[in-house]
Amino acid sequence: MAEPTKKGLEGIVVAESKTSLVNGQDGKLVYQGYSIETLAENALFEEVAFLLWEGRLPNKAELENLRAAIATEAALPAEMLAQLKSYPKNADPMAMLRTAVSALAMYDADSEDQSVEANRRKAIRLTGQITTICAAWDRIRKGHEPLAPRKDLNLAQNFVYMLTGHEGKEPDATAVEAINVYLVLLAEHGMNASTFASRVTVATGSDMHSGVVSGIGTLKGPSHGGANAEAMHMFLEIGEPENVAEWFRKNIKEGDRRIMGIGHRIYKALDPRAAILEDKAKALAESSGNSKWFQIAKQLADTARADAYFIERKLYPNVDYYSAIVLYTIDLDVDMFTPLFAMARVVGWTAHIIEQFANNRLIRPDLNYVGPMGLPWVPVDQR
Amino acid sequence: MAEPTKKGLEGIVVAESKTSLVNGQDGKLVYQGYSIETLAENALFEEVAFLLWEGRLPNKAELENLRAAIATEAALPAEMLAQLKSYPKNADPMAMLRTAVSALAMYDADSEDQSVEANRRKAIRLTGQITTICAAWDRIRKGHEPLAPRKDLNLAQNFVYMLTGHEGKEPDATAVEAINVYLVLLAEHGMNASTFASRVTVATGSDMHSGVVSGIGTLKGPSHGGANAEAMHMFLEIGEPENVAEWFRKNIKEGDRRIMGIGHRIYKALDPRAAILEDKAKALAESSGNSKWFQIAKQLADTARADAYFIERKLYPNVDYYSAIVLYTIDLDVDMFTPLFAMARVVGWTAHIIEQFANNRLIRPDLNYVGPMGLPWVPVDQR
Repeated sequence: MAEPTKKGLEGIVVAESKTSLVNGQDGKLVYQGYSIETLAENALFEEVAFLLWEGRLPNKAELENLRAAIATEAALPAEMLAQLKSYPKNADPMAMLRTAVSALAMYDADSEDQSVEANRRKAIRLTGQITTICAAWDRIRKGHEPLAPRKDLNLAQNFVYMLTGHEGKEPDATAVEAINVYLVLLAEHGMNASTFASRVTVATGSDMHSGVVSGIGTLKGPSHGGANAEAMHMFLEIGEPENVAEWFRKNIKEGDRRIMGIGHRIYKALDPRAAILEDKAKALAESSGNSKWFQIAKQLADTARADAYFIERKLYPNVDYYSAIVLYTIDLDVDMFTPLFAMARVVGWTAHIIEQFANNRLIRPDLNYVGPMGLPWVPVDQR
Repeated sequence: MAEPTKKGLEGIVVAESKTSLVNGQDGKLVYQGYSIETLAENALFEEVAFLLWEGRLPNKAELENLRAAIATEAALPAEMLAQLKSYPKNADPMAMLRTAVSALAMYDADSEDQSVEANRRKAIRLTGQITTICAAWDRIRKGHEPLAPRKDLNLAQNFVYMLTGHEGKEPDATAVEAINVYLVLLAEHGMNASTFASRVTVATGSDMHSGVVSGIGTLKGPSHGGANAEAMHMFLEIGEPENVAEWFRKNIKEGDRRIMGIGHRIYKALDPRAAILEDKAKALAESSGNSKWFQIAKQLADTARADAYFIERKLYPNVDYYSAIVLYTIDLDVDMFTPLFAMARVVGWTAHIIEQFANNRLIRPDLNYVGPMGLPWVPVDQR
């Protein structure tokens, strides 16, 4: 094969899609016609889910129907709760989530039904179930009984309720608002690696659970969804705003030059989601009275932005950078950051899976074989 | 984006690789320098595993070490056996396998260790464990107690023993030989869809279990690993050799023209694995005294081969076509055919995962956005 190797598939267009436009040159992100700024300011996560699945915003009745359907479907089968309780408490939460979502297929009457209707039902169900699994797992591993989702709440409310609540306690409004914005921003992002993995998986005619499971396993990596936790570990390592300059000199100037959460395969301008999350992180820092982590992040970003290496390469904070501060400020455990990313992105994965099924072709690239040829067999005794 | 859409990524080279060469034009398949014919005639499955992981054939001590390591690592943690027993008995075996392999990560001390050494240990362990899961699941769902792997057997022997055996009973030699050849032929096949999914998954820096889980979910589809079961369902539907002509006329000439197990994305000549499996299926049919299924398959292949539609499009039987007959003749349940494919292909997946980690780059193609732009927000009450 004489074709040049495209290791990262950069610039290769693998699908026409109505889901979202990522304009990395200008730092723009559009879901189904709406700018991410418009959606972050106005939309409930369920509105974005409807938009990505149906291609338009819902009217009031449709939105209420979807909210109620997700809240209802979010209840886990009893067998699934028993399984979650049997998992080792120190399991990596993404390995837990990948396993639990895979297991859900075995309890889902629609799992082997590849019709459009069944896939829409599964998209709604998985969106609800993943929220419940994330919250339930954090309670289970801490020795608490998980809470069932409430049918009267929206997804962000239900997550905060199931994570921190008890009967009679309403979910904290500041946390709910932060979670909702986070979910809206992270719901969809073009042909990112986990979405692509979901599409490759279902393109063989496999099923939606398989596609979402591939998405979770792919998101887990530190060069993708794992980056938010990695960024927070970095901020924690820096520890105090006054340590930023020294940390930057030692770890970045004289180190490997990579800052977790700064730089992106596609964005060569500021990630528009990072700009929104920076404002959000700042507001949360002020209202919570703890601005240390925001200050560390801000100072480190400013330091990088003044450095020739980062300027030349157009390396800006990405969505994971300030989302780490937002999630940490509302008291989420660092190792739950990436599961929360999955809680949002399941909407994008399922929208892409439905799109892939609608106009399917097996996704199968080539490799360039560089190994030996024509070797003769030598019996094992003579090797 | 002005780039043309490459929905199937046909002809796009995504990696340089020493694993295998698939020459679809001439119908040739080579693993690390050895033709598939040579390997099918001579090699133990463990020899092929060593070849794909290490790039050369093992000497006698190395082969015995690997055989023993796989047989030892094939034992499942007690928690995993308990989980398998808790799964619904009517679960799709590929959904079961995907879930179980994902769960194994939570019991594997190496799961979050991305070093070369840990990845080699995990490749060996997963190869053994998948064999045990497949055999154990078939017993569990039939109400029998699973058997633990024996440390003195090779993988094909252990599979047959755990599937059909009991203490003191040696595995049937004919079945072992058929399974071994099947595993050798199916171990690796270039940048096929499931292998590609494994690579996309680990290219984010995710882990080997995530990669193999994506591989299983992708293999599950009927356009990939699911095809062997689909082919067998077709043969069962035909029922008798004398029905072939009529079935072909009604279902193929006047139907959708697709025969499960005939045609392949890459092969425009006879799939060399199909040729080997045809001989194997024929020999098994003769020795078992039941040649009906082989006769149906052979007659259907001959009928297609004489039809202009199939001739023009160069549609030949692929590996799934005659492997269905081989696996059915040795009494494997049809829905276990695809798990058996995974039992073989895990060697290829893990070899590719190790290769991907050695020279990694995030795999992230583009999409061509064809949705609307610049839509204004309309409050929900006004929609």
